[in-house]
Amino acid sequence: MKTETTIQSLNAALSPARLARKTIGFVPTMGNLHQGHLNLVREAKKLCDVVVVSIFVNPIQFGPNEDFDNYPRTLEADSQLLAEVGCDVLFAPSVQQMYGDLPRRTAVVVGEITEVLCGRSRAGHFDGVATVVTKLFHIVQPDTAFFGQKDWQQLAVIRQMTRDLSFPIDIVGVPIARAEDGLALSSRNGYLTDLQRKVAPKIYQSLTDAEKALRKKTPLAEVLTSIEANLTKAGFEIDYVEALTPDLEAVNAFDQDIVLFVAAKLGNTRLIDNLVVKYS
Amino acid sequence: MKTETTIQSLNAALSPARLARKTIGFVPTMGNLHQGHLNLVREAKKLCDVVVVSIFVNPIQFGPNEDFDNYPRTLEADSQLLAEVGCDVLFAPSVQQMYGDLPRRTAVVVGEITEVLCGRSRAGHFDGVATVVTKLFHIVQPDTAFFGQKDWQQLAVIRQMTRDLSFPIDIVGVPIARAEDGLALSSRNGYLTDLQRKVAPKIYQSLTDAEKALRKKTPLAEVLTSIEANLTKAGFEIDYVEALTPDLEAVNAFDQDIVLFVAAKLGNTRLIDNLVVKYS
Repeated sequence: MKTETTIQSLNAALSPARLARKTIGFVPTMGNLHQGHLNLVREAKKLCDVVVVSIFVNPIQFGPNEDFDNYPRTLEADSQLLAEVGCDVLFAPSVQQMYGDLPRRTAVVVGEITEVLCGRSRAGHFDGVATVVTKLFHIVQPDTAFFGQKDWQQLAVIRQMTRDLSFPIDIVGVPIARAEDGLALSSRNGYLTDLQRKVAPKIYQSLTDAEKALRKKTPLAEVLTSIEANLTKAGFEIDYVEALTPDLEAVNAFDQDIVLFVAAKLGNTRLIDNLVVKYS
Repeated sequence: MKTETTIQSLNAALSPARLARKTIGFVPTMGNLHQGHLNLVREAKKLCDVVVVSIFVNPIQFGPNEDFDNYPRTLEADSQLLAEVGCDVLFAPSVQQMYGDLPRRTAVVVGEITEVLCGRSRAGHFDGVATVVTKLFHIVQPDTAFFGQKDWQQLAVIRQMTRDLSFPIDIVGVPIARAEDGLALSSRNGYLTDLQRKVAPKIYQSLTDAEKALRKKTPLAEVLTSIEANLTKAGFEIDYVEALTPDLEAVNAFDQDIVLFVAAKLGNTRLIDNLVVKYS
């Protein structure tokens, strides 16, 4: 595996693959990799000739009160995991390399679907994501890019942006990787105390319970209230419990495919999860 | 010359050039072509193997009170001019082809330098330009794109966007094409009455007079006031007369390279022009 830290050296590393018309798969990450990320790389390996993973903790997608400075940076361990799983090129640029010194004045802004769910409590977050992913798409020029379904809203925003801006790139969503007890894998799980770690799987349990209730014709509103009550009782501070269509449109009843979304805090750690519930 | 009206057929037309690693030059236009546009094509022919010109009257860059519906559409004449000057592929998509039916939610937004000059009176105009140019860049995937210096602010916005979003595209600005009497060529000149057409060159005359005055050490503020007075006397309704750096930063004196900008109406027709005044 090659590791490149500049746009120029990345281009040099990818040039032979481009000349040979090999397909390039791209997995953008912020590092601190777990099996969820590695699943994205495995999926990319299946579909593309060459796999590029980026590790870049992107300052412009963190709010002023968020954890940019303390976000875990574990490049050495990440690099070893990526090499083991067959990543071809790791792109790990500095903030300086990505944003430079000149005034930065351009943002890619996705409306509406960024104003629900996590967008309500994280102003500007998805603009930061859409902007950096646009830059990375231009730098890597992949044929296909891979995103985890755990950040379902992020995936929906990237899909919308890709379609709206006519990017010549296929977007693939990869199912959530979970611990044996059901907890969705996340870089933030490392912040949990042992006790919190034991409580955390209740999010996924409440989602699967909710699916069962929906299939027994319990009304959607009642099901959502019940998730909220269960998690609050277990010690979570709820940010949102919501149902939307897969494209993040509003939905009033379980009369089509829906996605159940939860964001909740255990202590200072904010966890998110979701579950697709197929109608047919 | 090939003419393509869909993204798919354009890709098919460009595929052999891409496989042969030929360089692609791109000239985005709204049609109603004049020598200014044709100069862009000639410049592209010099620098690139294959030249693509797009003709697309982009609805999202027109304000509610602007002339989208009445904007001149002269595809047949344009097509002939392009063929004569050696354009290889004309891309002339419909609004439906470019924007489709699905909800459009993504905008490319460039701050600060879009809020001066034309940006003040044309809210949202440059967002519309930046967004459609981003789409066209993704569709055509050129190596180099060519823009006229007449729309200096537009060129500056595209340069800023290209740098900020790491587009792998070189941007070339091409000098203003002028009629013999100095009037900057523009699609909008066709709206002028014979009488207005005779008055219109006074914009350029006032700019060249201003350059002379600056070289004789007349203070910048005085020079700008004088342009405004001369044009008002000649029957123009002034939108702005301003001096900025080439990157559209504020400037107080002629102590560096500057650009003089004028926007003014004759009757209902809004004309713009500019002149670079080199310091050294």
